[in-house]
Amino acid sequence: MMPTSREHDLIARYFAPLAGPEGLGLLDDAALLTPTPGHEWVVTADALVAGVHFFAHDPAGRIAAKALRVNLSDLAAKAARPRGFTLCLALPPATPARWIKAFAKGLGEDMARHGMALIGGDTVATPGPLCIAITAFGEVARGRMVKRSGAKTGDAIYVTGTIGDSALGLKCLMNTLAQPSAASHRRYLVSRYLLPEPRLALRDALEAYASAGMDVSDGLVGDLAKMLAASGCGGAVKLDAIPMSPAARAAVALDAGALATALTGGDDYEILATVPPEACAAFEQASAIAGVSVTRIGVVRARAGVDWRAGDGTRITFRHGAYSHF
Amino acid sequence: MMPTSREHDLIARYFAPLAGPEGLGLLDDAALLTPTPGHEWVVTADALVAGVHFFAHDPAGRIAAKALRVNLSDLAAKAARPRGFTLCLALPPATPARWIKAFAKGLGEDMARHGMALIGGDTVATPGPLCIAITAFGEVARGRMVKRSGAKTGDAIYVTGTIGDSALGLKCLMNTLAQPSAASHRRYLVSRYLLPEPRLALRDALEAYASAGMDVSDGLVGDLAKMLAASGCGGAVKLDAIPMSPAARAAVALDAGALATALTGGDDYEILATVPPEACAAFEQASAIAGVSVTRIGVVRARAGVDWRAGDGTRITFRHGAYSHF
Repeated sequence: MMPTSREHDLIARYFAPLAGPEGLGLLDDAALLTPTPGHEWVVTADALVAGVHFFAHDPAGRIAAKALRVNLSDLAAKAARPRGFTLCLALPPATPARWIKAFAKGLGEDMARHGMALIGGDTVATPGPLCIAITAFGEVARGRMVKRSGAKTGDAIYVTGTIGDSALGLKCLMNTLAQPSAASHRRYLVSRYLLPEPRLALRDALEAYASAGMDVSDGLVGDLAKMLAASGCGGAVKLDAIPMSPAARAAVALDAGALATALTGGDDYEILATVPPEACAAFEQASAIAGVSVTRIGVVRARAGVDWRAGDGTRITFRHGAYSHF
Repeated sequence: MMPTSREHDLIARYFAPLAGPEGLGLLDDAALLTPTPGHEWVVTADALVAGVHFFAHDPAGRIAAKALRVNLSDLAAKAARPRGFTLCLALPPATPARWIKAFAKGLGEDMARHGMALIGGDTVATPGPLCIAITAFGEVARGRMVKRSGAKTGDAIYVTGTIGDSALGLKCLMNTLAQPSAASHRRYLVSRYLLPEPRLALRDALEAYASAGMDVSDGLVGDLAKMLAASGCGGAVKLDAIPMSPAARAAVALDAGALATALTGGDDYEILATVPPEACAAFEQASAIAGVSVTRIGVVRARAGVDWRAGDGTRITFRHGAYSHF
C-alpha cells in the first residue's frame, strides 16, 4: 500500500512496542493466533470516526481506549476471554506526532488493563477525519459462545449497570438537554459517554447461565428487539424496572424527553442477557460475586415484539427516539 | 455505535447474504472461528482510503475486490489458506444504494472465487472519503507460517510474476509517465494497478520450501530490505534478473526513471520468498505445477544490506524512489 516512511517510523516508534509475541513485534506482515485446545475464536469489529463517534478534540488516549472498549464490550457479552486485536488507523493530514504518542500510550494502558495484545494492523493517510477500525479476538470453550439467538420463552431478561447515562452524557456535551442538571450529575453522565466500562467481569456468570446475550450499543429498546427477534420470540419489559443512575433519573425528572433518549440513544455498553428461570438465583449470585450489578427488567414471551409498560400498566411505544403512550 | 436505520437496511440487504455460517448471517454481534485441529490462524489487516489507495470513481465492485485481494496477498505470502474476513466500511454522505449494491456484488464474487467468508464487520458514516478496513484470517498447520525472519545465508531469493507493472500503471493513469507507451501496454499496466492477482496458488510450494516470505506491496527494493533485515542478514540482487512484463520493459526503454518507479513504487502484490539452495529445484518444479511463474533474482548474504548490481556490475542505490550508479 505504499506507506510513507513517516508511517513506518510511527509504527516502529509507537505501535511496535505494544505488540505481543503473537503480533511478531509488528515486524511481520501477519500475526499468528494459536488457539487454546478445545476453544474457538469469537471475532468482532467496530469502526469509529471522528465527529461521528467521538469528538476530534477528545484526549487521544481516551479515544484509543474507547475504540478498544467498544470491542471488548462485544466480547464480554459473548462470554469470551479477550486475547488480541488488529488496529487500522486512517490519520488525517498533519496529525502531530505527540497526538499519536498519546494515542499509543492510552491504548497500551487499556490493553494492559484488559489483557489484550495488539497483533497487527495498518496505518494509512486520509484527507478526511480520523477513522479507527478494530477487529478483536476472544476465546470461548467450544460451543459456549453466548449468542443472540438462544433466548427461550419464560427466560428472565437482565441488564448490567445502568441504562441511558451515555446518551444523556452526549446531550450534556451538545447542550441539548432541555434542563440543566447538577454539575456533578453532568460530569457523571459525560464520563459515561466518554469512556465505557466493558463488563468483562461478568464473563463466567454469562457462560454458566445466560441463554442469550449482546451488548447494548444501539439503545436498549432496539437492541432488545433485535436479540429477541434473533431468538424467534418477543418479551415484556417494565419501564420502572430499568436500572438508571441518580444522574439519569434527575435528568428524566426535569425533561420527560430524556427518558426516550436514555432508552433509545445507545452507547451504553452494558450487557443485555436472558437467563432461564431456574438459573436466575445462581446468575444473580455469580454476578454479585463478580461485582457487576444486574437487574431483571422483564421476561421473554413467545409472541413476537417487545411489550413495554409504564408503572401504571399503560403500553409505551418508541419511534424515532421518542415514545408515546397508547 | 448508534447506527442509522439506513445502516441496518444496507447490512441486511447487501452484506448479510454474503456472510457464511461462521458470520452467523451477520445477525449476531460477533462471529465464531473454529480452527481445524492442529492449525493456527494467520491474521492480517489492510486499510484503503479513496483518493489515496484507489480512485473514488473506480467501479465499486473492483474497489471491493482490490480491498479483499491486498489482504489475500498477505495470506498467500504466509502460506495460509484463506478462510474469512471482517469488513469495516466508513461511507461518505449520500453514497447511493446502487454503489453499495455494486460493492457487495463485486465483493461476493471475489469472496466466492477465493473461498473467503465474510464473518463480521461494521458500517459507519463518515463526512470524509470512503474508508475500507479488512482483517483477514487464514489457516496454516501449526508452526508452518512462512515468516519474514527465516532467510539464511546462501538461500536463493525469488519473486513471483513480474515487478513494477502496478506502479507504472498508476503513472499511466496519472499521466506522469515521461513517454507514452503503446495503448495495449498502457491497458495492461493499468489493469495490474486496478486489480492485483493474489498468488494463492503458490501456497503449497511456499509451505514446503520457503525459508522466508512476504508480499511485495511497498516496492521490491524496500520490501526485500525489510525481509532480509528481519532475518538478520542481507543479500545481492542482479537488476537484469528481475522479471518485468513486456509493457514494463517498453516503459523503461522509453524513460530510464520508470525503472526506479517499477522497483520502488509498490502495489505489486507479488510474493518475495527465500528458498534454501538444496530446495530450489523442487520449489521451481512445484511453482510450475501450480502455474505461478517464479524467478530467482539473487542470493541471501550474511552481510547486512542489499547489494543491487546492474548488468555491467556497477552498484545501484535507490533513494526516494530514484536510483543512482556508484
